[in-house]
Amino acid sequence: MITNANNTPAIILTNPQMGENIGASARAMLNFGLTDLRIVNPRDGWPNERADATSSGALEQMPPVQVYNTLNEAIADLQYCFATTSRQRDMVKPVYEPDGAMKETHQRVNNGQKIGFVFGAERTGLTNEGLSLCQAILTFPTSPEFFSINLAQSVLLIAYEWNKLIHNETAPALEIGDSFPADMGDVDGFLKRLMGDLDERRFFRDENLKPTTIRNIQNIFTRADITDQELRTLHGVLSALRGNKVQSK
Amino acid sequence: MITNANNTPAIILTNPQMGENIGASARAMLNFGLTDLRIVNPRDGWPNERADATSSGALEQMPPVQVYNTLNEAIADLQYCFATTSRQRDMVKPVYEPDGAMKETHQRVNNGQKIGFVFGAERTGLTNEGLSLCQAILTFPTSPEFFSINLAQSVLLIAYEWNKLIHNETAPALEIGDSFPADMGDVDGFLKRLMGDLDERRFFRDENLKPTTIRNIQNIFTRADITDQELRTLHGVLSALRGNKVQSK
Repeated sequence: MITNANNTPAIILTNPQMGENIGASARAMLNFGLTDLRIVNPRDGWPNERADATSSGALEQMPPVQVYNTLNEAIADLQYCFATTSRQRDMVKPVYEPDGAMKETHQRVNNGQKIGFVFGAERTGLTNEGLSLCQAILTFPTSPEFFSINLAQSVLLIAYEWNKLIHNETAPALEIGDSFPADMGDVDGFLKRLMGDLDERRFFRDENLKPTTIRNIQNIFTRADITDQELRTLHGVLSALRGNKVQSK
Repeated sequence: MITNANNTPAIILTNPQMGENIGASARAMLNFGLTDLRIVNPRDGWPNERADATSSGALEQMPPVQVYNTLNEAIADLQYCFATTSRQRDMVKPVYEPDGAMKETHQRVNNGQKIGFVFGAERTGLTNEGLSLCQAILTFPTSPEFFSINLAQSVLLIAYEWNKLIHNETAPALEIGDSFPADMGDVDGFLKRLMGDLDERRFFRDENLKPTTIRNIQNIFTRADITDQELRTLHGVLSALRGNKVQSK
């Protein structure tokens, strides 16, 4: 059994449709030293015989795949996530190709952060909701004439670039001062509290627009790469604005 | 129909067993601009329905796959071939990894040569006879603990590195979407409003810490690279939290 190496990136497959692709993703990961595979709401359940077959033994040798009901839960212990997408989206986030994303990843890993790469369903890709939970976008430089890349193939490119980078050079640690990025679960907790307050104050007057507005607000805070300390400050700000007793710092 | 670009490398699959892998190889090639696929003695004949399925349309869009009885015939018009293998072989040939092989390829292509990448059967890899026909060896830097890479996955890495080399430069992080970053004066206006509200609510209880706290809050919002639209949303959020009448959007 191969154990999870410290701080190697996690691969998160949301709503994967075909077991074949999950197994092939696991094989590609293990080929290049990645072992932390998480799946959210797989169409055909888990475990999956077709996944076992295409993994060529990878699923037996790597730590057990973690299965979640929501993407929020799957990334709660991570500090920074890339959303992989082939289509242009109307969202303001930094956009990387695999090698650039890996440089960013490596710096963050050297800083002690845990990073995730989030993939959508085969046919539809990642939802806008899923995308809004991630700090950055990763695209593959595929041909504009034939751009749809197989799920396991795109997982392979992440694993391959990761392996290449850690064997090539040591990246400097990212300079973010003493503070450490907040866990995404904690950011989510703050956002839930904010949304609850806004609901109470009847901020969302048009139910149809509510999901978009929520996504817009989430995007602001995920993009900001918030630290633990800042998250505490934001909770204090929220309490003050609501008129609650401000907690002592 | 996409035509064969001048002097892009050929991919040669010898004795491929599974149609699925041939189709997936075609898809991977076309994803990254390779179009010259040749197969030698495919186990299940040609054409192959399973290959059509996994190619996701690539086989229809690329020039017809050329089928040969022997590797000799398949590479007769090429000047230089890499034999791909995962195992060490007792042969004195230069050994490359994908990126190094691509540098060599690119130089030769610029010199007018046509290059091939030769792959063996899934289970057994390339025979020593096949290997002896090639000038160089290409290996993939897979994990020694789990080194067996899928055929189509290894074709993908060739195509990916080819595409990367001819597009050379890494794209810097960029912003996408229709929205435009807010003027810094407007961001400052929002922050001033927020600080005013916080002052009123007696958020800053320690005057000595106030400048630091203000700076921390500013940092969150300046780092988030807020758009015009998002700034309007934040103003609405602030009004709602304060309990003011929410302005219509």
